Parts: sequence; C-alpha cells; structure tokens
Amino acid sequence: MSLYEQLAEDIQQMIAAGTLPPGSRLPSVRTLRSRRAVSQATVLQSYALLEARGLIESRPRSGYFVASGPPAPSVAARPTDPLAVPVDVSDLVFHILGATRERRLLPFGSAFPSPLLFPLDALAASLSRSTRGLDPWTTVTDLPPGSLALRNEIARRYLASGVEVGADGILVTNGAMEALNLCLQAVTKPGDVVAIESPAFYGALQAIERLGLRAAEVRTDPIDGIDLESLREVLDAQPVAACWFMSSFQNPLGATVPDTRRPQIVRLLAERGIPLIEDDVYGELYYGARAPRPYKCFDRDGLVLHCGGFAKCLAPGWRIGWVAGGRHAPRLERLKTMSSLATNIPAQEGLADYFGRGGYETHLRRLRRRLASQQEEMLAAITRHFPDGTRATRAQGGYFTWVELPERVDALELHRLASAEGIGLSPGPMFSARRAYRNCVRLNHGHPWDATLRAGIARLGALAAQLA
Amino acid sequence: MSLYEQLAEDIQQMIAAGTLPPGSRLPSVRTLRSRRAVSQATVLQSYALLEARGLIESRPRSGYFVASGPPAPSVAARPTDPLAVPVDVSDLVFHILGATRERRLLPFGSAFPSPLLFPLDALAASLSRSTRGLDPWTTVTDLPPGSLALRNEIARRYLASGVEVGADGILVTNGAMEALNLCLQAVTKPGDVVAIESPAFYGALQAIERLGLRAAEVRTDPIDGIDLESLREVLDAQPVAACWFMSSFQNPLGATVPDTRRPQIVRLLAERGIPLIEDDVYGELYYGARAPRPYKCFDRDGLVLHCGGFAKCLAPGWRIGWVAGGRHAPRLERLKTMSSLATNIPAQEGLADYFGRGGYETHLRRLRRRLASQQEEMLAAITRHFPDGTRATRAQGGYFTWVELPERVDALELHRLASAEGIGLSPGPMFSARRAYRNCVRLNHGHPWDATLRAGIARLGALAAQLA
Repeated sequence: MSLYEQLAEDIQQMIAAGTLPPGSRLPSVRTLRSRRAVSQATVLQSYALLEARGLIESRPRSGYFVASGPPAPSVAARPTDPLAVPVDVSDLVFHILGATRERRLLPFGSAFPSPLLFPLDALAASLSRSTRGLDPWTTVTDLPPGSLALRNEIARRYLASGVEVGADGILVTNGAMEALNLCLQAVTKPGDVVAIESPAFYGALQAIERLGLRAAEVRTDPIDGIDLESLREVLDAQPVAACWFMSSFQNPLGATVPDTRRPQIVRLLAERGIPLIEDDVYGELYYGARAPRPYKCFDRDGLVLHCGGFAKCLAPGWRIGWVAGGRHAPRLERLKTMSSLATNIPAQEGLADYFGRGGYETHLRRLRRRLASQQEEMLAAITRHFPDGTRATRAQGGYFTWVELPERVDALELHRLASAEGIGLSPGPMFSARRAYRNCVRLNHGHPWDATLRAGIARLGALAAQLA
Repeated sequence: MSLYEQLAEDIQQMIAAGTLPPGSRLPSVRTLRSRRAVSQATVLQSYALLEARGLIESRPRSGYFVASGPPAPSVAARPTDPLAVPVDVSDLVFHILGATRERRLLPFGSAFPSPLLFPLDALAASLSRSTRGLDPWTTVTDLPPGSLALRNEIARRYLASGVEVGADGILVTNGAMEALNLCLQAVTKPGDVVAIESPAFYGALQAIERLGLRAAEVRTDPIDGIDLESLREVLDAQPVAACWFMSSFQNPLGATVPDTRRPQIVRLLAERGIPLIEDDVYGELYYGARAPRPYKCFDRDGLVLHCGGFAKCLAPGWRIGWVAGGRHAPRLERLKTMSSLATNIPAQEGLADYFGRGGYETHLRRLRRRLASQQEEMLAAITRHFPDGTRATRAQGGYFTWVELPERVDALELHRLASAEGIGLSPGPMFSARRAYRNCVRLNHGHPWDATLRAGIARLGALAAQLA
C-alpha cells in the first residue's frame, strides 16, 4: 500500500469507529502533513481518495469534513446467549422474499444490486463467442471440479489477493449459495451446532434449518464484525461443528473485521480444529484502496472453506460460484456430483472468455464507485427523513445499510405498511435465529439513485416516525 | 395411434418378450393381413417401421426376420429381500466414475450419449440471441420457479403427452439431478426407507446414502421393469417414505413398464399415500412410434413428482432440468431457493428461444433413429464376440444395454482389465445397494459406431471369455 493509501485507510478507520463523527472537520492539510511527516501531495491524494469514496466532502474555503450521515449503531447492547438454538425462520423469510420479487416494489428490500450496473453486453458477447467455439467434449471435461480455464482465472485472482490456492483446489458450483450449502453439509451432521454472526445472512439460517442443525449467535459489531470474546464464549459453551462467517461487508450489517483481528479468529478456530465456512461474496465490492484479506489468507490447516461467486460483482443470473475447500475439497466435490452433478458449462466458459479479454478491473472500479456514491445518497436521505434516534452503518463496501430505528418501531409492522405503499425493505428479525433486531431494517443501496428512490426513503422515514 | 403403429407395437412387444426370438422369421405379409384383418399396405408400413427401428431385417427373397442379438436376460432369478438396507456405494461409484471421465477410454462406461449427436450450432445461436436481447430484470423474475417462457414450453410438452401440469406446477432446476435430490429431500427424513428398482441408477443410491436413508430394492424385470408383487412385498415389509422409479428405458436395464401396469403402480402407491419420484430423463428417447406415458399421467392425488431434463435429449452441459412436484411443489420451490437459489438464466431463456423456433422434433427423430441403429450394432457385436451364455437387454429407447455375463465373470475384475486396455464399462455392483449383479455390466450405445468401438467390443468380449 502506498503512503497516501495508508493515510486514507487510517482516516477511514477513525471515521468508521466514530472518532471522527459525521460532519466533523478533518485536520488541515498543513497539520496532517507535519504530524504524519508526509508531503502535502500525499495528504491531498488521501483526501481525494476519501472524497471519491464518499467518506469526506470538501467545502469551499472551509476545508474537509466527514460526510454527514446518521450516527453508527453501537455493538448490539442486548445480552447475547452463547448457547445454540434450533432455527425456524423459513416461513418468515419466504414471506418477506415473496414480496421483494415484485417489480412494483422499490428495491430497498432486495438482496441484489441493480442488474443495470453490470457489463451485460460484454458478457453476452463472451457467452456467444465461447458457446459457438465450444469443444463438445467439455460436457465431459468440465464435470466437477469444473472448467479448468475458469478455475485458472479464479486461482490467479486468489494469488493477487494473497491466498495460496491453485486451480486444483477450486470447485465450481451453481452460485455461491450451492457452495455454502455443500460446505455446511460436508462438515456437519444433523443436530450439530454452527456458530454464525448476529445478525446473520438469512440464507445461512435457512441452510442450518434445512439440515436440522442448531445456530449459536456470536455478538457482531456493526463496524468491526465478529467479537472475539463472544466467539470464545460460544466455543466454550458447547461443541461447535463449524462457523459460517462473512469477513467483509457482512450481510446485513456491512461490518468488516479489521485485518489485525482476522488471523486471531482463524487461529482460535484452528486450535480447536473447527472448520470456518467463509462467505466472501461481497469481497470485490470494497470502496477503499484495496480488498480486505479473506480469512483464507491466514489458513494454515486447510480448515477455511472459502466461498465466492460472480452474482454480485459481475454476472447476475449466471449462477456461477466456487469454493476453495482446503482439506474438505474432496468431500465437497463428491457432494456436488451427487446433488447436482455439474455446473452450466456455457456460463463457465463464457466467464473464462470474459476474463481473458480484460475489462473486469475497469468494471469493478466503476461498480465500486457507484455503490459508494449510492451509499452517500442513502445515508444523506436517512439523516434527512428518518426519526431522531435512528442509527445506520456506513459499510466500507457492498450495498447494504443496516438501520437501527428507535426502540418502539416494529420492523415487521413497518414492512407491512411500507409494502402496502410499494416500498420494499428487509426487517431485522429475518436475520436472527431468535427473531431479534425487532427495531432494525436492512436497506439496499445497490440501485442507481433517482427521485423515486429519494421519495421512497422519505416516505419510509415518515412511516418509521409514525411508529416511533 | 394408427393401425400400422399399433401392429408394429404389438410385434415389438412380442420381440421384447422373447415370443419372437432373435433370428426367427416373422409371419408373411399375407398371413398377417388375413389374421389381423388389415390391408397389405398396413402390414408393410408396420414392417418398415420395425425395420427402421432396427428390430427386424428383410432378407431378399426370404421375408422378414427378427434382428439377431443375444437372448434377453430373464427377471433376476436371485431371491430379493424386501427389507431395506443402508447404502454405502459412493466409494465404488466414484472410483468407477473417475475412470469414465478419461477421454482415452472407449465410452462404453459413460453415462452420457456422444455430445456430437446434439444440435450444438442451433443451441449456440439460440443462447447468443436470447442473451443479447435479455431483459436485465430476468435476474429477478426468473428466480424460482424459473423462466416463465421455458416453463410454458415444458407445460406444452406435458399437454402433448397427456400430463395435466401447467407452467405454475413446474420448477426449473440445475439439471434433473438437482430435481431428483430435492424431491428425495422434500419427502423423507434421515433413517427413512426409499424403494428403488434393482438394479437402480447409482445416482439414486448416492442420494439415498447422502441423506442417511435406507434402500429397499424391488425386483425389476429387464424387459417390463418394476414387478408389482415384489413392490407390494416391500411396502408390506416396512413403512416406505418414497419410491424413486424410472418408468421408461430404465438406467441401467433399459426396462420399460408396460402401459397397462403403470396405473396399477400409481394406484398401489396412492392407496398408501406414498410419494413416487419419477425419474423420466430418458422418456424422449423412445425408438417406437410414441413416447410411453409417464406415471404422472395417472396421478390423481398429486403424489407423483415427475422429474425431467434436457441433458440427454438436447443440451448436454446446460444443466437444465425440472420437476412437476404435485402437492409437494411448494416445498420443492423452497428447498431449491435455500440450496442453490436459482438456475442459470441465459440457459433457460436460450432453451425457450430454441423451442420457439421449431426443429426440436426433427432433432429428436434423428437422435432416436441413431440410438436405435447404434443399439443394433452393439447387440450384433455382443452376439459375435461375447462368450456363450451372455444375455443382453434390447431396450425400446435410451442408450444403455445391460449385459448378463456367464456366472463366473466378475464385472469388477473385467472393469479393471478393460480399463487397463483403454475400454470403459459400468460394472453391475455400482447399481445395487447390496453390491449384487456381480456378473453384469452396463454398456453405453450412445456413441456413433465405428471401427474403434467395434474393436473395443471385440476385445471386451475376449476379456469376458477369459474370465468365464
């Protein structure tokens, strides 16, 4: 990392931690220059980077200020219980999901970014090209573990991010969702306990429910992710068969575990021989200078099962994901073969063609910038329209904003009222085995901002104020 | 069915049943005309159809003869046990499958027909066209149950085959394999008993093993499929949670349940409220005048879960299948969403485009003719080269020939010897929870016949003779 990126990173952490609160003034260029013993150009570059990320704004003749927005939620104050519980969320989740599929609803409840943000033409061209020239025998050679050309591309990206996984350690799957489900099945048996974040991705809750497992919720800071002490408590309270964690831009909080804490978490689990299923589907969507390093980077024992996918960063609807399963790779390949045999071959070869032509990095940079700027719009609108006492996360990547509303607001009731007015949202209880987070909602800022969305957030704020 | 088709069907049944053995002379045109009270043209049309199917051959100045081939196996004489057993076949199956993926092996052990038999150019054109014009919002609208355009096409084909299932009763899946696995999961819980054919598709055995179920093997006639008495015995011996049966061109036998017995099987299961998972992936590959009617045709209670796919008849490697789940449809859609979320959207829309342009029926007719003629080649080669006492099935569709070798031949040993010489095959024990069928092999006749394949069968016969 260059000097200016390092400086920007440090400031970003201070903003995330609330040391520099929204609206506060940043140190002047001169002050910072002398304190950090760097050149003026370095400070200006840092500020420019932070401004591009939407984290700070320059005001003419006044200097730089932390972008305004609601205050961040504190680590959930509610006492957590380290003991596992059975999971029964599917009815609620499917009830809510059914609504988000309706196109008439504003997409704040959606799990996907807008499909208009993706290079659909280039992808279609790659798919056409590779399918026309496809070796018919790929129907045999691309059986699990999958297309070698695609696995090579994924391995190259691993190398660039500091993860040592070769093409032969990668299994291509029907989206990351299949990868995650295969992992969970590979390392558990019915009745086992799985440690998850709190709040957690509802897909993890459903997978746990589907396989007859129990969930132990680990306290999760809205900024810094997994709390190490809480994790230790959970592990001490019972035998834990596996963890399912998102290290970066966690769904639904947007939390990102600091780089320094990542090896500690991996080590703690390795000491106890517990496999860590790493759901890293948002990893490419960082707003900062570089991607956080996945848990898999610190895996010395083959115990991290790293799952990724292209649905959120490149090719929605193609359903191509993968897993680098470490020591569980052979079992995962068998489970994949037994449960869905293979993965769509034109899509695998089409992606390999797309990567071979370049352009992915340019697309990603543009996508990250747009998501960051949409986040600013979302936070500004929440500040303006939501009732006093509202808090919200400012994730460093991805496209989710987690909003804590005043205690009296019931998110399920808000969901009902909002749906009736054509506004989608994801209520907090979908993200918890205990149906907690009753006064929280997850809002999607993955859609290009316009007057309709602005009006939608205004109306949502008014409804929340009514309930508060 | 027209008169001549009916006559051909009757003769085909007599050949299949051995009433007209291989090499025997058919009644003269004049005899048949007067006995059946039909015109000479009708008889000639029937014979022409049977000749086209490779079932009979005309010899100049001598008349028509049943095509030669080895005698059919009789219904497995071995006493079957109606009680379920746990399944543990995966190591064996994966050991064998690992070998069949090697391109250097002659493809007699393969589960797929040659990819060269499919309209790859037309499919590539449809995929290109539909992807270029794709509505970006299909990423949302094509979530389960899947593309409406494709489900409409599948529903139209159901209508034509006498099955009453609308587009809203169909769930698109990642190949038929995912559909079958979802079905099994939807209607069982660990420890349950599932009734299967004997021998059975190893994929069914693996799914049963993966979900911690037990298998009860039902006696299965190599010609007529499921034995009704044996099925009743299995159902009486224990509570059975589900059946997983293939009604047509069963893998590995090639057996086809007679139309008259199908409603009896469906009724027997309905009386006891037992769901029937129908694996119908070979249904389109009939050599006769028309497709057999699936069990689903006779389903009055929504208890038949009919699974199909396009991998074997149209688009290998696209991984598009479906299930018409009857009363279990809502649960299947949930399980699909939870385990792999969605199915590749370009492939779904590409298939819908292909169907919309016509040409599928022409492709199917050509494919069926080629498979039937390859079957003739295979049977003739087996007759010529395999040791005395060899029996083989003559399926009425699909691309598998089941071969019963003399008692002393060990198919696993034959597999080892043949693999070392570059010849693939699927040994009988892969197809049985009890590792039975020790002296049987499944041979694939789905590949265009040539000198290499002919030499391969000759060598296989010599190896079998050595072991006999």
